[in-house]
Amino acid sequence: MKDTNAVFLIRCMDKKGLVAGITNFFYELGLNILNCQQYTDCMTGQYFMRLKLDLSDLAFSKKDLENRLTEFGKPLGLEWSVHYSDYVPRVAILVSKASHCLYDLLVKQREGTLKCEIPLILSNHPDLEYVAEQFRVPFFCLPVTKETKKEQEAKITELLSIHHIDLVVLARYMQIISSDFIDLYRNRIINIHHAFLPAFQGANPYLRAFQRGVKMIGATAHYVTADLDEGPIIEQDVVRVTHEYGPDDLSRIGRDVEMMVLSRAVKAHLESRVIVHENRTVVFTGGIGA
Amino acid sequence: MKDTNAVFLIRCMDKKGLVAGITNFFYELGLNILNCQQYTDCMTGQYFMRLKLDLSDLAFSKKDLENRLTEFGKPLGLEWSVHYSDYVPRVAILVSKASHCLYDLLVKQREGTLKCEIPLILSNHPDLEYVAEQFRVPFFCLPVTKETKKEQEAKITELLSIHHIDLVVLARYMQIISSDFIDLYRNRIINIHHAFLPAFQGANPYLRAFQRGVKMIGATAHYVTADLDEGPIIEQDVVRVTHEYGPDDLSRIGRDVEMMVLSRAVKAHLESRVIVHENRTVVFTGGIGA
Amino acid sequence: MKDTNAVFLIRCMDKKGLVAGITNFFYELGLNILNCQQYTDCMTGQYFMRLKLDLSDLAFSKKDLENRLTEFGKPLGLEWSVHYSDYVPRVAILVSKASHCLYDLLVKQREGTLKCEIPLILSNHPDLEYVAEQFRVPFFCLPVTKETKKEQEAKITELLSIHHIDLVVLARYMQIISSDFIDLYRNRIINIHHAFLPAFQGANPYLRAFQRGVKMIGATAHYVTADLDEGPIIEQDVVRVTHEYGPDDLSRIGRDVEMMVLSRAVKAHLESRVIVHENRTVVFTGGIGA
Amino acid sequence: MKDTNAVFLIRCMDKKGLVAGITNFFYELGLNILNCQQYTDCMTGQYFMRLKLDLSDLAFSKKDLENRLTEFGKPLGLEWSVHYSDYVPRVAILVSKASHCLYDLLVKQREGTLKCEIPLILSNHPDLEYVAEQFRVPFFCLPVTKETKKEQEAKITELLSIHHIDLVVLARYMQIISSDFIDLYRNRIINIHHAFLPAFQGANPYLRAFQRGVKMIGATAHYVTADLDEGPIIEQDVVRVTHEYGPDDLSRIGRDVEMMVLSRAVKAHLESRVIVHENRTVVFTGGIGA
Repeated sequence: MKDTNAVFLIRCMDKKGLVAGITNFFYELGLNILNCQQYTDCMTGQYFMRLKLDLSDLAFSKKDLENRLTEFGKPLGLEWSVHYSDYVPRVAILVSKASHCLYDLLVKQREGTLKCEIPLILSNHPDLEYVAEQFRVPFFCLPVTKETKKEQEAKITELLSIHHIDLVVLARYMQIISSDFIDLYRNRIINIHHAFLPAFQGANPYLRAFQRGVKMIGATAHYVTADLDEGPIIEQDVVRVTHEYGPDDLSRIGRDVEMMVLSRAVKAHLESRVIVHENRTVVFTGGIGA
Repeated sequence: MKDTNAVFLIRCMDKKGLVAGITNFFYELGLNILNCQQYTDCMTGQYFMRLKLDLSDLAFSKKDLENRLTEFGKPLGLEWSVHYSDYVPRVAILVSKASHCLYDLLVKQREGTLKCEIPLILSNHPDLEYVAEQFRVPFFCLPVTKETKKEQEAKITELLSIHHIDLVVLARYMQIISSDFIDLYRNRIINIHHAFLPAFQGANPYLRAFQRGVKMIGATAHYVTADLDEGPIIEQDVVRVTHEYGPDDLSRIGRDVEMMVLSRAVKAHLESRVIVHENRTVVFTGGIGA
Repeated sequence: MKDTNAVFLIRCMDKKGLVAGITNFFYELGLNILNCQQYTDCMTGQYFMRLKLDLSDLAFSKKDLENRLTEFGKPLGLEWSVHYSDYVPRVAILVSKASHCLYDLLVKQREGTLKCEIPLILSNHPDLEYVAEQFRVPFFCLPVTKETKKEQEAKITELLSIHHIDLVVLARYMQIISSDFIDLYRNRIINIHHAFLPAFQGANPYLRAFQRGVKMIGATAHYVTADLDEGPIIEQDVVRVTHEYGPDDLSRIGRDVEMMVLSRAVKAHLESRVIVHENRTVVFTGGIGA
Repeated sequence: MKDTNAVFLIRCMDKKGLVAGITNFFYELGLNILNCQQYTDCMTGQYFMRLKLDLSDLAFSKKDLENRLTEFGKPLGLEWSVHYSDYVPRVAILVSKASHCLYDLLVKQREGTLKCEIPLILSNHPDLEYVAEQFRVPFFCLPVTKETKKEQEAKITELLSIHHIDLVVLARYMQIISSDFIDLYRNRIINIHHAFLPAFQGANPYLRAFQRGVKMIGATAHYVTADLDEGPIIEQDVVRVTHEYGPDDLSRIGRDVEMMVLSRAVKAHLESRVIVHENRTVVFTGGIGA
């Protein structure tokens, strides 16, 4: 398996000898650890590890490797997931009318910053079809009314299933998603909210930011849960504003922050650097070799 | 009045010829405009101006100048206030147990960054007396219980009055202030809240920030109004944090942001750069000559 | 001239009565001042003003207006330029192989954030032709060798002239531009340098940033002058990095900063908010009504 | 050794089984790993580890532990250092005339943010004696002229030696330090430079920043080496400025950045989170349990 890596995300209760035990397990299988990051939540005693392995010297099948880890992990109560570098994750983007986040994701995918495939773009409006066409990505327009919401969402999840989608990105998709949908893609739907959560949850955050007279505006990328804008935060950022900016200015200025924050969160997810723990995220750092 | 300046803060409804009219008024009095900043709130049609005048060539009394401006402003519905550079504003600092903001204000006053006098420090706890002593500032400890709150607040306002206090700074003062007190010092009490408002209003913001899993923490300096943490924001800032930081880390890291934000807000107020408009602030920029 | 505005950028030596004089001049012509910003450079005594006028009530021709201002300004030594809102500036983008800045400019132009036309894209490489095609912008590939440099640059300036280009944006164009070209477009060529100038002038800034072990990397947008990377800076920004990032990571992370900084600088220029003063820029703030 | 921790900083060439080997070594001694961070420099193949151990169950002496690690590390070419939590590092602060960094360090030490003792303050000027007195720290004034430089530096190093100083902090000490002094405290002298290095090395950075017209100013904390302002950078930060700020404004605004950056660097050093590698630093993150 030359040039193939595996990234394991691991969690369990902390105990003495854990690092030594886990790293030794992989060492004895003859595998080189390229990168190892860990974190212990002192409040809950939960231990988290991200391990990147070189599989060049793997002497048996991936399935075997996974079985052995399962066996090894049983007495420790180890939970884990693995991502292999020879699999390219498949991402669906859901949009409404605003194009900036969509463009940024498509460009970063094309430039190689986001290592994924984007087999389809879904929207409840026809407005952004031209962007999909520019990048030659299939575009499905599924308008939603109160009456058709359930039916259209069924179509969306069917399309996601047919296209073997691993990650759903809500790139300014202005529809609330049902809990059935969310359950299907638990911790695999990333939304961008155009405010610094928990400030300005819900609708019209820029107008409310203007009215409140804040001196910075922000954006928040988070996993979607049943509670609107309450899911685990992956990434946030802000930008300074002044009294001179009206709601429309804030909305325009905020666009840059939204797209930065969203693409950083998507990148972290695609690189298996995020573990959800209760309503918080552990986000391991990226960089060379990570 | 050599080397004396006046800063006028002016507001009225916007209308044609306003800039020309006002600047002409001062020009015809033979006064040089050193700096002139303005802002029109397009939503409400309200006009705001900050004007810095060189009074070297003032040929009559300040009182006269003020009377003439009042006369001139009547038909325009002009509201204005003035601050003369030969008057040094007097600031009282209220604290509880945390020393960082107090130290920062005292040091910046001593270094000349904050042009004011600090005739007294008030506290509901004795803990910070040593800081007051280090800087040779009178310290009054007025412990507050449910029963004594009214009485102690009366003592505080009396002390403020005796010392001719112009600005009250709540430098992590952990007591809610009564509306009577607030009315006395309307738009002259600045509080530092240890969160990025309107997120985490109220108590224990760092613990709640940790629990919510935010990726940045912040601080907000605002004028105190009857609604807790709802007053007009003067300045805000944030700092990036990660999952590795517990509530105590956030509290420690936040201290630096709190003191930066508070001292910038106090400086803006002392330099007459802030106008309150509904629940927002117009904060004119500082810098050379402003 | 309903719904038409004019933005005047004005400079002269500071003197008493200047604000009153200039604003009065326009008031007496019956024109409403929508926005007025000013700045005096205390070191050189130079005065700068940005004035936005509503031309709805203009009772004579623009030419007339300009002539009157020229007349008025003579005794004051006034230098000025004007931009009318009914003229859409024409921008040429020069690129080499990196697509991120080009995409960002094209998207922001299409979304209306950058109010300009982009009649052509020029490159010394064929790589980005597909981007130009996605946005239906004519693309000219003019490869440059040591021998053909002069000839190709002549072709470039000819194309710029034919297309009535007002502003040239070097969006990661990796060729040094001759001083003849620069003279033709003085203070009208904006370059993005991928470092926080004056640090890491010249080639390979990200590699050198890595080697120097800096903890932040940045980008700088500036007007191009004969001295490489020495022109007046319009906008800069930085992003935090750690030892974990190699040169390629820095280059990737830097891309986002580069495109933010470049598009902000281009926007400021297009909105007539920049005045060059010696080797510095006065950049007036934007926002509602500016 | 209840409640005692040890932090080991370890480096060697990377090889298979390193993490497993090292963590196993400590595990087999019966010691719990509280925190483990690592980094591999892909360019040089160098491996770095920070390991925090709980010594509660240490069954033999520290000296024994160290000998065993030395033995274990020989075949691996391991270099390491250790810091025990029951030893409080001793810090000397060198200053000239500016008080802000000195105040910030003293306050943060007193508040417990910087876990160290500060047995003495040294200066080439008498100006800051009052600050030392406020905090009851011995103050030594050692004025330096061209003639007395060598002699005074000898006195300084003698004082540092007498007081068993572990770390020397140059908190705006405006004297160049001789290479003999630097050799004595290799990677144990931290300086704050009032610019974003490598921009504006040397004298008068704020004036030069003004003249160059930069839109952000910064500060850099670095270990002192023989080459002025060329040593390994520990921490940097910047703050946004505009054309409105003159050199004095930049100097004043910069003070806040300087003190933030310096105290963060000193804190990282005191917590044994910094490893110098060639002219770069590996700075491991802090936070709960680190």
